[in-house]
Amino acid sequence: MPNSYINAPEGFTAAGDHIGLKKQKKDLTLILSEVPAAAAGCFTQNAVKAAPVLYDMPIIASGKKVRGIVINSGNANACTGEQGLRDVRAAAGAFAGLAGCAADEILVCSTGVIGVNLPMDVLLPGIGLVFDKLGGDEQSGEDAVQGIMTTDTFEKTAYEEITLGGARVKLAGMAKGSGMIHPDMATLLAFITTDAAISPEMLQKALTASIADTYNMISVDRDTSTNDTVLALANGMAGNSPIGAEDGDYSIFLAALSRINRKLAIDIARDGEGAGKLMEVNVRGARTEADARILARSVTASNLFKAALFGADANWGRVLCAMGYSGACFNAERVDVAFRSAAGAVAVSKDSTPVAFEEAAAKAILSEKEIFVDIALHDGDYSATAWGCDLTYDYVKINGDYRS
Amino acid sequence: MPNSYINAPEGFTAAGDHIGLKKQKKDLTLILSEVPAAAAGCFTQNAVKAAPVLYDMPIIASGKKVRGIVINSGNANACTGEQGLRDVRAAAGAFAGLAGCAADEILVCSTGVIGVNLPMDVLLPGIGLVFDKLGGDEQSGEDAVQGIMTTDTFEKTAYEEITLGGARVKLAGMAKGSGMIHPDMATLLAFITTDAAISPEMLQKALTASIADTYNMISVDRDTSTNDTVLALANGMAGNSPIGAEDGDYSIFLAALSRINRKLAIDIARDGEGAGKLMEVNVRGARTEADARILARSVTASNLFKAALFGADANWGRVLCAMGYSGACFNAERVDVAFRSAAGAVAVSKDSTPVAFEEAAAKAILSEKEIFVDIALHDGDYSATAWGCDLTYDYVKINGDYRS
Repeated sequence: MPNSYINAPEGFTAAGDHIGLKKQKKDLTLILSEVPAAAAGCFTQNAVKAAPVLYDMPIIASGKKVRGIVINSGNANACTGEQGLRDVRAAAGAFAGLAGCAADEILVCSTGVIGVNLPMDVLLPGIGLVFDKLGGDEQSGEDAVQGIMTTDTFEKTAYEEITLGGARVKLAGMAKGSGMIHPDMATLLAFITTDAAISPEMLQKALTASIADTYNMISVDRDTSTNDTVLALANGMAGNSPIGAEDGDYSIFLAALSRINRKLAIDIARDGEGAGKLMEVNVRGARTEADARILARSVTASNLFKAALFGADANWGRVLCAMGYSGACFNAERVDVAFRSAAGAVAVSKDSTPVAFEEAAAKAILSEKEIFVDIALHDGDYSATAWGCDLTYDYVKINGDYRS
Repeated sequence: MPNSYINAPEGFTAAGDHIGLKKQKKDLTLILSEVPAAAAGCFTQNAVKAAPVLYDMPIIASGKKVRGIVINSGNANACTGEQGLRDVRAAAGAFAGLAGCAADEILVCSTGVIGVNLPMDVLLPGIGLVFDKLGGDEQSGEDAVQGIMTTDTFEKTAYEEITLGGARVKLAGMAKGSGMIHPDMATLLAFITTDAAISPEMLQKALTASIADTYNMISVDRDTSTNDTVLALANGMAGNSPIGAEDGDYSIFLAALSRINRKLAIDIARDGEGAGKLMEVNVRGARTEADARILARSVTASNLFKAALFGADANWGRVLCAMGYSGACFNAERVDVAFRSAAGAVAVSKDSTPVAFEEAAAKAILSEKEIFVDIALHDGDYSATAWGCDLTYDYVKINGDYRS
């Protein structure tokens, strides 16, 4: 098995370690490209944006190339005012100084508690410590993904290899969840590195296209974060003929990027805070694509249906209720609903009215770890898929005591 | 103490009992006016509307007078198709036959599980049994409020006496919660009786005006119900000079009606499923009234902040986060936040940045049963208040096993 972590593409190194922002777990990660890389990003639509988001956005918008990313967990650097922005610039400068590049060739991401200033006496020396560990090996890559985790219970990574005009191209991704997840442009946080040669414009186009059906279709708790960020770096070291238009190579690249983002997004939903089950909601036969998306997301975000899923209770009325208040346009009297999992499938509603079903069979289906909710409308030809998780005691426990 | 239940106004009788829709608790309530009463109603905006909502809406819209209301708990009669509508008409007809009026002088409300047809072999004889118990005494009034409760843990009633042109006028209200509460026109379910003489038009105007700041400003779980209904009956038996315009009497009446609806709405939030704490969010200094409302409601509906409240954790960043994704327009860098309760008050954020505060004091404040979140903006002169509750293990427990 070759290395498939974030530092697997040619020319990328990474590292992560515990520097003291959190009590024990790793809390700082660096990603560095040997050569300047095209960069793309998507950011939260929350009006309250964390300092690193405000810092990164104009760099991405400028289209200039980037060398690296510094990411800390344990502190979101959000609601920290002018001091927060100064701290971001200092962190970027520290990494840039060590890497021998300009400060604005470094992007910054933070995740953790909101409303506390970063302890710079811990962060700045920590950047030096982690810089010395940058490597291209598997262990460094694993350390890097661990450095961005907060309440995540498992590492979220994805890897693809594709061929572009005869050149072997690698793409690697990593992401973190697992609370304050209801992305509206991107999720908190995901990173993609690739050695593909691609223009910043086409990289941004591919990233934006791929998040619509991936990060933007998951929800853990309906709380859109202040720090949502997806960043992609492409350093061109694979030597492929550079992608500069929506040609065949672009399509291949976009498909691989989308597979990575889909895998990471589903993993975030699966590992939602306190979650025991992954829910996939498939809406078919909608009037428009927008309606299909809104309906699918509304079901994944319903506290009542999430709690029913936790209890393995086939309470399909809550599915229709969540569709009804979603704001989407659909014929509310022509909705068919079925539940499906590894244990089988059961139709529970036809034309928005009850279908007789075996309670025991439904219970068995809903007791699995991956539950599919199949919703058929009769309004048109559009479909969408969204992912979420159940609402559990552990979600309440984790979030009743997050800062302590 | 005079009777202050729903049957206290002149000419109203009520009753409630267990007829077998639920296992043990009371599940059917009747309200009857001796004479035809002006009727007003507000209904859910959920596109999936329960059969009784679809039945009541045209009756209210017609402006015709009404004699009574039949209300069952234990079954929402929602997502029940044509059969559901037939069952509503049969229930109205059964009550009308006993009361000696036309079927369309009877309104119907249901609350409980969605997607199950009403057992009419239980409901129809039950209406006869409860009809025989109709009375104007306190015990009948208490039975009536108990008959509409589902997961509510206490009775929600309100009572006012006012003087209109020398005539003594009584208003009484009752409501139920306590899950699937995120009203968007009204809440599930509230009833007001009054012996005031008032035209249907002015009664509807007063009811619509009073719900904007009451039921429409509460949230338990962000799930707008399929059955939300507020109904008001005014039978004129107080003998006041009939209210037919927005005059002084109307203002007095509207104020009393609003006090009743405010009290019932706050009680619903306080008794939210699994709730241990009531949260009141006050937004001041907003650019528009709509912005103030949206911001206040967004904070009450945030799972993350609700869980923090449960844990008495002064996690004010979640307040700003919920404001940020609300869609309202505000200056995100000029937000002041304070927490307040019987144990004192503590400022936690000034200009969207941290204020140093004593953790122990904040913990003590947030450990009380009624928590006030005071949010000051610097954008304008508008304000709004919303109510919600904490998110607890019991919410998950109750809703993981609702149908069983």
